[in-house]
Amino acid sequence: MRGVVMYGPGDVRVEEREDSRIIEPTDAIVRLTATCICGSDLWPYRGVEPVDHTLMGHEYVGVVEEVGSDVSTVKVGDFVVGSFVISDNTCEICRSGFQSKCVHAEFVHGGIGTQAERARIPHADGTLVATPGQPDEDLIPSLLAASDVLGTGWFAADAAQAGPGKTVAVVGDGAVGLMAILAAKQLGADRIIAMSRHPERQKLARHYGATDVVEERGEVGVAKIKELTGGLGAHSVVEAVGTQESFMQAVGATRGGGHLGYVGVNHDVQIPGIELFFAGIHTLGGPAPVRRYLPELIQLIWDRKIDPGKVFDLTLPLSEAAAGYEAMDERRATKVLLTL
Amino acid sequence: MRGVVMYGPGDVRVEEREDSRIIEPTDAIVRLTATCICGSDLWPYRGVEPVDHTLMGHEYVGVVEEVGSDVSTVKVGDFVVGSFVISDNTCEICRSGFQSKCVHAEFVHGGIGTQAERARIPHADGTLVATPGQPDEDLIPSLLAASDVLGTGWFAADAAQAGPGKTVAVVGDGAVGLMAILAAKQLGADRIIAMSRHPERQKLARHYGATDVVEERGEVGVAKIKELTGGLGAHSVVEAVGTQESFMQAVGATRGGGHLGYVGVNHDVQIPGIELFFAGIHTLGGPAPVRRYLPELIQLIWDRKIDPGKVFDLTLPLSEAAAGYEAMDERRATKVLLTL
Repeated sequence: MRGVVMYGPGDVRVEEREDSRIIEPTDAIVRLTATCICGSDLWPYRGVEPVDHTLMGHEYVGVVEEVGSDVSTVKVGDFVVGSFVISDNTCEICRSGFQSKCVHAEFVHGGIGTQAERARIPHADGTLVATPGQPDEDLIPSLLAASDVLGTGWFAADAAQAGPGKTVAVVGDGAVGLMAILAAKQLGADRIIAMSRHPERQKLARHYGATDVVEERGEVGVAKIKELTGGLGAHSVVEAVGTQESFMQAVGATRGGGHLGYVGVNHDVQIPGIELFFAGIHTLGGPAPVRRYLPELIQLIWDRKIDPGKVFDLTLPLSEAAAGYEAMDERRATKVLLTL
Repeated sequence: MRGVVMYGPGDVRVEEREDSRIIEPTDAIVRLTATCICGSDLWPYRGVEPVDHTLMGHEYVGVVEEVGSDVSTVKVGDFVVGSFVISDNTCEICRSGFQSKCVHAEFVHGGIGTQAERARIPHADGTLVATPGQPDEDLIPSLLAASDVLGTGWFAADAAQAGPGKTVAVVGDGAVGLMAILAAKQLGADRIIAMSRHPERQKLARHYGATDVVEERGEVGVAKIKELTGGLGAHSVVEAVGTQESFMQAVGATRGGGHLGYVGVNHDVQIPGIELFFAGIHTLGGPAPVRRYLPELIQLIWDRKIDPGKVFDLTLPLSEAAAGYEAMDERRATKVLLTL
């Protein structure tokens, strides 16, 4: 089967790899219908994270082709959406809603790699969720978004306790930030401030529910958020970038006693303890427990109540994955969908 | 009137200061019955925090001697307990329970200084709480503890969501750590692990409700907590020290999706963003909104349901404050009460 391998920074190739096959009785083999490139795939692409012949891709939708003898909740022929972290969905941590910290947690990125024709998904019962039927073609991008960016943005908005009566500020206008805006809107937030300086993304942010746009960054951006919130800061802040500046901007934008949800991967970020201390805020972050939200998100998409798929602004065949990485790296695309 | 002034690191003097007097109509003058030395007073004493002729002390109980014309909830003659942070208790932040981040927040330490005969307390209505009557002598240490260490330990346990069904680990066996143990017990935690290597403090920890003691620190301490919790980590962790090692120990001891409450002042702590990210935990910390808890804590003390005053293991007259600082600095005392 064909799949994407990142040989090194900037070096993405689509090549023949060993076929995926059942190893454990809890495995399923999924024939990919679509997959995509994640903002986090750019970290190794840019040399910020180590990479060496790495199997890429962790977002996926497709049809179950084979299941191990212990798999009971999905069957051959089901159309499924899966989380980017494997989970058994039965351990104590999963039952508390943190499937991304499951005792059997394993990242799909690296070991599995779903930018490929097929993928072996361990703990299929705890990782995959079947859709109510075979989806219409136009729903596929949205279902694919649920696999990571939507689930991650939703978690961030939930972690920030976005909801009725709340002002939510979203730091980052990438796919996850945009999904956090969509989520904040669905969760009933009164006011949603997108921090973005990119006209196209501002437009999409407003489509998803942003009521205000702040172009300023860093301390000036924080001052602007305070100005818009009676000097107090936002009740809820989402951090969806993962740099030192963006993280501290998010901390500064949160009011005392407010909630910060952070889902940007915090490379090289050092949080000054004393600043976090005197901010006096709640924080919750990390790899999102997408599995927790999947049933609800799939239903919202199925019922056409949300359209997260609009976040994909470039579609390419898997064979042209390298061009997709390039487009995202150069910010010519927000998110690239790969067809099979 | 006499009061404690810290001239510089290690240089504590009791000297005549200008009398406290009403400045704003929302002020009250409190004649101190007792005050004390806080673990945080050791930061400037040890030269870790800047200090220059600073008015010391932020914990206090006493009798209201005079009130400004706008004060309505406390009256002359009332015995009162106050928070170590001034708050109006009416602003939006106060109403959300974060009085330590009040729009009128001001630290009693520095500008006011309650290691003195009298203190001017701004926003008296929002900062002070009157006890149900004049307290018996033996209740005074416990009421004084409510002013900071008990309120802070309680906030930390609450921030860590200590409660029924939970295993709570407390990093730090100083006064605040011990109070967090008392709080976790009151909040109904199933199991409370004190991280302490000091025999006397272990004894007090057990008195307050600790079910287990872990003497190991750092990574070995984390491994021990995991061993005691089926490999998962504690549901709830309190950080009550404020060093790099203790903070990261607390992060490591918290299970995925668990809650960390941190109240140690994080001097020179740099939290690696990537470690916090992959921990996947809730955090809440900062200066405790003691005012939120005061009415409940005073009642528990009044009804003799809790005895936080046992945390004071040395009592000295105000005039011997310097000896009190010395005893705490040398860890000969956990917490020093100063009488007037």
